[in-house]
Amino acid sequence: DFLGALEEVRPSFGVAEAELQRCVSNGIIKFGDHIERILSDGQLFVDQVRNSDRTPLVSCLLHGPNGSGKTALAASIATASDFPFIKLVSPETMVGFSENAKMATIAKVFEDAYKSPMSVIVIDCIERLLDWVPIGPRFSNAVLQTLLVLLKKQPPKGHRLLILATTTHRDVLQQMDLQEAFNSDIYVPSIQNIRAIETVVSGINLFNDTERYSAMKYLRDAWGDSQPSIGVKKLLMIAEMARQDYDKVDKFVATLLDEGSIPAK
Amino acid sequence: DFLGALEEVRPSFGVAEAELQRCVSNGIIKFGDHIERILSDGQLFVDQVRNSDRTPLVSCLLHGPNGSGKTALAASIATASDFPFIKLVSPETMVGFSENAKMATIAKVFEDAYKSPMSVIVIDCIERLLDWVPIGPRFSNAVLQTLLVLLKKQPPKGHRLLILATTTHRDVLQQMDLQEAFNSDIYVPSIQNIRAIETVVSGINLFNDTERYSAMKYLRDAWGDSQPSIGVKKLLMIAEMARQDYDKVDKFVATLLDEGSIPAK
Amino acid sequence: DFLGALEEVRPSFGVAEAELQRCVSNGIIKFGDHIERILSDGQLFVDQVRNSDRTPLVSCLLHGPNGSGKTALAASIATASDFPFIKLVSPETMVGFSENAKMATIAKVFEDAYKSPMSVIVIDCIERLLDWVPIGPRFSNAVLQTLLVLLKKQPPKGHRLLILATTTHRDVLQQMDLQEAFNSDIYVPSIQNIRAIETVVSGINLFNDTERYSAMKYLRDAWGDSQPSIGVKKLLMIAEMARQDYDKVDKFVATLLDEGSIPAK
Amino acid sequence: DFLGALEEVRPSFGVAEAELQRCVSNGIIKFGDHIERILSDGQLFVDQVRNSDRTPLVSCLLHGPNGSGKTALAASIATASDFPFIKLVSPETMVGFSENAKMATIAKVFEDAYKSPMSVIVIDCIERLLDWVPIGPRFSNAVLQTLLVLLKKQPPKGHRLLILATTTHRDVLQQMDLQEAFNSDIYVPSIQNIRAIETVVSGINLFNDTERYSAMKYLRDAWGDSQPSIGVKKLLMIAEMARQDYDKVDKFVATLLDEGSIPAK
Amino acid sequence: DFLGALEEVRPSFGVAEAELQRCVSNGIIKFGDHIERILSDGQLFVDQVRNSDRTPLVSCLLHGPNGSGKTALAASIATASDFPFIKLVSPETMVGFSENAKMATIAKVFEDAYKSPMSVIVIDCIERLLDWVPIGPRFSNAVLQTLLVLLKKQPPKGHRLLILATTTHRDVLQQMDLQEAFNSDIYVPSIQNIRAIETVVSGINLFNDTERYSAMKYLRDAWGDSQPSIGVKKLLMIAEMARQDYDKVDKFVATLLDEGSIPAK
Amino acid sequence: DFLGALEEVRPSFGVAEAELQRCVSNGIIKFGDHIERILSDGQLFVDQVRNSDRTPLVSCLLHGPNGSGKTALAASIATASDFPFIKLVSPETMVGFSENAKMATIAKVFEDAYKSPMSVIVIDCIERLLDWVPIGPRFSNAVLQTLLVLLKKQPPKGHRLLILATTTHRDVLQQMDLQEAFNSDIYVPSIQNIRAIETVVSGINLFNDTERYSAMKYLRDAWGDSQPSIGVKKLLMIAEMARQDYDKVDKFVATLLDEGSIPAK
Ligand SMILES: Nc1ncnc2c1ncn2[C@@H]1O[C@H](COP(=O)(O)OP(=O)(O)OP(=O)(O)O)[C@@H](O)[C@H]1O
Ligand SMILES: Nc1ncnc2c1ncn2[C@@H]1O[C@H](COP(=O)(O)OP(=O)(O)OP(=O)(O)O)[C@@H](O)[C@H]1O
Ligand SMILES: Nc1ncnc2c1ncn2[C@@H]1O[C@H](COP(=O)(O)OP(=O)(O)OP(=O)(O)O)[C@@H](O)[C@H]1O
Ligand SMILES: Nc1ncnc2c1ncn2[C@@H]1O[C@H](COP(=O)(O)OP(=O)(O)OP(=O)(O)O)[C@@H](O)[C@H]1O
Ligand SMILES: Nc1ncnc2c1ncn2[C@@H]1O[C@H](COP(=O)(O)OP(=O)(O)OP(=O)(O)O)[C@@H](O)[C@H]1O
Ligand SMILES: Nc1ncnc2c1ncn2[C@@H]1O[C@H](COP(=O)(O)OP(=O)(O)OP(=O)(O)O)[C@@H](O)[C@H]1O
Ligand SMILES: [Mg+2]
Ligand SMILES: [Mg+2]
Ligand SMILES: [Mg+2]
Ligand SMILES: [Mg+2]
Ligand SMILES: [Mg+2]
Ligand SMILES: [Mg+2]
Repeated sequence: DFLGALEEVRPSFGVAEAELQRCVSNGIIKFGDHIERILSDGQLFVDQVRNSDRTPLVSCLLHGPNGSGKTALAASIATASDFPFIKLVSPETMVGFSENAKMATIAKVFEDAYKSPMSVIVIDCIERLLDWVPIGPRFSNAVLQTLLVLLKKQPPKGHRLLILATTTHRDVLQQMDLQEAFNSDIYVPSIQNIRAIETVVSGINLFNDTERYSAMKYLRDAWGDSQPSIGVKKLLMIAEMARQDYDKVDKFVATLLDEGSIPAK
Repeated sequence: DFLGALEEVRPSFGVAEAELQRCVSNGIIKFGDHIERILSDGQLFVDQVRNSDRTPLVSCLLHGPNGSGKTALAASIATASDFPFIKLVSPETMVGFSENAKMATIAKVFEDAYKSPMSVIVIDCIERLLDWVPIGPRFSNAVLQTLLVLLKKQPPKGHRLLILATTTHRDVLQQMDLQEAFNSDIYVPSIQNIRAIETVVSGINLFNDTERYSAMKYLRDAWGDSQPSIGVKKLLMIAEMARQDYDKVDKFVATLLDEGSIPAK
Repeated sequence: DFLGALEEVRPSFGVAEAELQRCVSNGIIKFGDHIERILSDGQLFVDQVRNSDRTPLVSCLLHGPNGSGKTALAASIATASDFPFIKLVSPETMVGFSENAKMATIAKVFEDAYKSPMSVIVIDCIERLLDWVPIGPRFSNAVLQTLLVLLKKQPPKGHRLLILATTTHRDVLQQMDLQEAFNSDIYVPSIQNIRAIETVVSGINLFNDTERYSAMKYLRDAWGDSQPSIGVKKLLMIAEMARQDYDKVDKFVATLLDEGSIPAK
Repeated sequence: DFLGALEEVRPSFGVAEAELQRCVSNGIIKFGDHIERILSDGQLFVDQVRNSDRTPLVSCLLHGPNGSGKTALAASIATASDFPFIKLVSPETMVGFSENAKMATIAKVFEDAYKSPMSVIVIDCIERLLDWVPIGPRFSNAVLQTLLVLLKKQPPKGHRLLILATTTHRDVLQQMDLQEAFNSDIYVPSIQNIRAIETVVSGINLFNDTERYSAMKYLRDAWGDSQPSIGVKKLLMIAEMARQDYDKVDKFVATLLDEGSIPAK
Repeated sequence: DFLGALEEVRPSFGVAEAELQRCVSNGIIKFGDHIERILSDGQLFVDQVRNSDRTPLVSCLLHGPNGSGKTALAASIATASDFPFIKLVSPETMVGFSENAKMATIAKVFEDAYKSPMSVIVIDCIERLLDWVPIGPRFSNAVLQTLLVLLKKQPPKGHRLLILATTTHRDVLQQMDLQEAFNSDIYVPSIQNIRAIETVVSGINLFNDTERYSAMKYLRDAWGDSQPSIGVKKLLMIAEMARQDYDKVDKFVATLLDEGSIPAK
Repeated sequence: DFLGALEEVRPSFGVAEAELQRCVSNGIIKFGDHIERILSDGQLFVDQVRNSDRTPLVSCLLHGPNGSGKTALAASIATASDFPFIKLVSPETMVGFSENAKMATIAKVFEDAYKSPMSVIVIDCIERLLDWVPIGPRFSNAVLQTLLVLLKKQPPKGHRLLILATTTHRDVLQQMDLQEAFNSDIYVPSIQNIRAIETVVSGINLFNDTERYSAMKYLRDAWGDSQPSIGVKKLLMIAEMARQDYDKVDKFVATLLDEGSIPAK
């Protein structure tokens, strides 16, 4: 049961940093103004937690389409806080866990955080933590209830906590009353202009100048007035596929037109 | 099972006071007449329990939108009763509990109360105790049935009990026949005029006089004839966020117009 | 499991009387003709069980709105029978019981009854025994099936049994085929005229004559041609609340107009 | 589990006769031609099982409205067969049984029957055995599947079996493919004419001649061209209630007009 | 669990023959051309399994209305194959089995078959193996998934397997993707002309010539241009019932017109 | 539970090759251009995994109608990669496994893969792994969640992984958010022209030239302008059935017109 499960969960201070860095494996490329703005809004929440006596608990939900960079940005804000306790709660470390084990793992992270004077907890991909699937729909109500309570529970006197969470399904969280348990939220959009695409491919040295010029021209001609829509994560994947092909420009353009011409869901 | 769970729950007299005080962490600011009226109605129920032989059991449901101050007010009424047994039943102390453990914990509080000549029990956030979620909808019927019975069960001869409960989902409780198990209810509204907002920000010294004057003018201009609607809890959160910003007035007004212009759900 | 549960349930003869008396804690005030009629109909069933060889099992369902006095009347009829075995089956004694424990408890009461030459069993608030909730709807089918069988099962040769049950949800019982398992039923209405209200408040000495006259006049003026509808249980609660107020008449009339002007559900 | 449950079920030869006689506690009153016809049809099935080599298994479903006499008639046919193995499968002996215990009990009766050269099994009130309730609807699929198989399973070479079952919900059985597992069925109607009512009350000596004449006249006048519809079981209950009253005729007629004027469901 | 269950299942070679013969208890009467055609199609599958290297696994579904002879025909084809391993998987041997026990029993039969160079497995009444009921609908998904995989899993190199299955609910199997897991299917119709009926009653010597002539004439007159529809199994049952009656012809004709005049479902 | 299950799963390096070869038991007949294209696209993914530092995890879903050759093609691509770790995850090896055992088996394969510098995992017939059935619909959410996480989880630094999966129900995977967890997908169509059919039957030497000429002519005449649609797997099955018949051409043409004239679902 839950209590048994709780005791088996070992405390694990300090290991979070490596985990958080792996979330930003391809760096943060500043391909648009909103990237800076998101990072500075994050900084403001960090300051509020550090300074205000009246609000020792602040929570923020990063949401946006598939692969738009939510996890990398949340990890960056958390890392930048320099709080003594920083921790990632991720479905990747809970493969095959029972509901009780998940609840115990999550509860343990919060209990550990309560012991530190200042803490950040990053809860990645909430819908996956909840075992959510649109058919039914089904999800773990027990994990949901745990989150609903922990998101509103004040840390003990003199302790402070910042919670950053990510999701691609804010609408689902809303239906669960989970969205309103957050104090604030930040939208992380997909890439929606060719210039940002150019900045990204430059950042990873996919093309020489001629190739890049030619690729961007193709894209401009193809899209005309309509807008692309592609997550930075998928864009990087397409770029790397193209890199294997003897005709990089053609493969890149063809695949991108295929995948990035309708709004990423 | 339930009986096993019941035995493991330890009696816990006297600890409630600290818990109840934490529910009123930012005090009770008297930003409107209805605050006084709610507190005096609460006092009347306390008197009825103390004095009437025919009604040794009285129950009251405090309901209203998110963050309107329900928990703080219930805790204040309970604390003011000076009854020898005062106890908080809260989902925050039951994270990860099984249905049986929840039922046993709740039943234990009532059994303890029955031993005291006069008692108050505060049941906070009933929908969370019930693990309620609108999708499905799902909830713990076992916990619900426990509450349905305990809310109507007379204490033993010569003993008296006041039950105060809070919820943001009275409609849901109604669908469950739970609302009609209460003898009475009290509505706790959100803040719906600018003067009350001014009283709150004065109460926490957010602005100097010039700043406050300017902030309130902005709000009056923006809302015109329409009405704000914001819970006191969210208002305090916005005020503390604004306090971190170099331009407090602008941040406060902008965020409040964002969050407080449609009726809080 | 069930058998294990059955063995743990101890026989408990003779204790029922106190329990049944507590169901009539405010007495039976004869505020209308139907009260007498219900009591004498109950007496007729008692006689049939005592006298007829062909019908050793008789069952009757008392139904009506919230707080109309069903439990008190069933308890009164049972107590008046003077049968050697009289027993109350109530959800209040089964808080937190598992389905099996509930079934075993109920089955045990019937087994004990079968040993007595003449018995009355009062089954109070059937919908609560079934853990019924309108959302879903959900209920314990195992407990329901137990009742469906026990309500029709003949006692052993030479033994006789009267079953009295109460419910506020006869419609629900009908949907479950449970209503048709009873031989007969009795409707217990709420109070629907001012004279009956007057009889009740006189019965508990709430007012002096001037106060009572003035209160009834207010009510007559307010309701005019329309009808009040209030359960005797709620009426007693309102009267006791009013008793605490410095202006009893005003509080009594105001609350009653609030709560008793639409038909009690 | 099932196997464990199966072993715990003790064989119980010979006890069935008393049980079957209690099903006919008020005898079989021949109040209409169809009663004779049902009994002789039953006899024909008994003969087929006794004589035909090609059909060692015959099954028949008795269905009809509430209290029409199904159980009493099935018990009578079974008793009249004089087969060496006669057994009643009834929900009344399985109160509180788990699904596995029910299945094991039923399977055991069939296994015992397979050992006898000729057997009759009476399965009373199939919908109750299945824990069926219209809300949902819910029922025990495990017990249903057991019946579906056992109803079609041939006894071992040289052994023969007649299965008689009763139900008030043939429509439900049809939806479950259970109705088509029977070889044949017999309809048992409720009483639908005043002469049959007269035969029944004569059979139990409720009235003297004057009283009976007067009661029947009242009924004829009240019903005119419309038809009564009342199960013989309910009719007997009403007669016995009336017997307690000082004015038997009035009570009998009033109650019967109340209960028997719309078709029994 | 499943593994435990699997180990408890004992291997059982050779016993199948008796079981299969009992499925053909009344022989195969050749009352129409299609009977021969079904048997020869079955023979072709047997040959394919024996001869083709490329298709070591062949599966065929026999489907058709209630009692049309599916089980008897599948058993006949299997018996005629003379393969060293022939086995019947039937719900009749699994009364009261848990899902795991059923799955283990089925898996065991396949494992045993894989050890023989050539095998036939007859899976009788698939919908019953699946505990299927139209209400809900409900069925054992675990058993279904087991069948879905085993129906497509190749036997080990050098081993061959023919699978024959029967069902009255091909539409249900289709909804479950189970129908498309079979390589082929054969339709087994009910009897739909009077000549076939005559062949069957002759085959069991129900009538002398005069009786038969007279019975067939009655049927021809009654049905005229419309068609009968009756499973051979039910026809045999009706014939045997009629045999008990003093007026065989009348009883036979009357019952057959009753039961066989609308298409068997 | 899952952890216990995980430990019981033994590592199994090297055994995969035989399993993968059995998936291609009838070879890869190049009956159309798209076969080559699928194989070379597969090769490109293999190269990307081998070469790109930025994308150590690549996943691809092969989807298409029943029997179109998905499993054989995925197995061929995997075998051709020459990666040190190649593994098949197939429902055929998990008959009767509990959810936990399935999850543990799958997780174990991934853990083993993470230890190898370069790995391919083939996940065959995802809908079957999920115990998916359209009625309900029902499926194992626990297995689904495991796949959803593992499909996106990066292998440890310096390790690379290619995931190839097959399904006939891409629409279902889409409803489960599972389709979007893949980086790319490949469509495997059924055979839709007579020339390809001819190539296949030549490849298995079904006919001599005259027979083949005659069979193709029949097909051309029958289909005219309309198109055939048949999976290569079913085509091979029909060819082998026909091989048993004395008139191969007739049997082949007749069966193919029956089964291949409407688009394979
Ligand atoms: N400006 C940027 N913002 C975010 N990520 C960036 C940016 N520039 C480059 N990246 C890289 O893009 C990838 C973004 O992937 P990430 O997992 O954060 O997306 P996500 O939105 O969380 O995806 P998912 O919807 O699958 O959870 C990371 O590898 C990150 O290093
Ligand atoms: N007049 C007031 N009434 C209630 N709370 C007040 C008042 N003035 C200040 N507060 C402060 O506002 C906060 C109200 O929060 P509280 O938790 O009681 O709201 P709530 O309605 O219970 O919220 P939720 O809907 O999340 O349960 C407390 O910190 C309390 O100290
Ligand atoms: N004539 C009366 N009939 C019934 N109860 C009466 C009457 N007069 C006074 N009372 C008092 O009114 C109260 C009726 O409460 P009771 O619990 O019987 O109502 P109920 O209909 O069972 O309520 P619920 O719907 O909550 O079960 C009792 O305290 C009883 O003593
Ligand atoms: N002709 C008759 N047929 C059947 N029962 C009769 C007849 N005459 C008198 N009785 C009596 O009527 C009663 C019939 O009750 P029985 O339990 O058989 O009805 P039922 O249809 O099985 O009821 P239920 O629908 O509740 O199962 C028995 O007590 C029986 O002795
Ligand atoms: N030509 C025939 N084909 C099949 N069965 C025949 C034939 N002639 C006689 N029979 C007899 O008819 C009976 C057919 O019953 P069987 O159980 O095979 O039907 P079924 O279609 O499987 O029934 P169900 O739908 O109940 O499973 C058997 O007793 C068999 O011996
Ligand atoms: N070009 C080809 N592509 C694929 N399979 C081929 C081809 N040529 C011959 N085959 C043979 O056809 C069969 C294809 O069967 P396979 O199991 O791969 O189909 P599938 O699409 O996975 O079927 P299912 O939908 O049942 O999973 C194999 O036996 C394979 O050897
Ligand atoms: Mg992410
Ligand atoms: Mg609150
Ligand atoms: Mg009551
Ligand atoms: Mg009956
Ligand atoms: Mg059959
Ligand atoms: Mg495949």
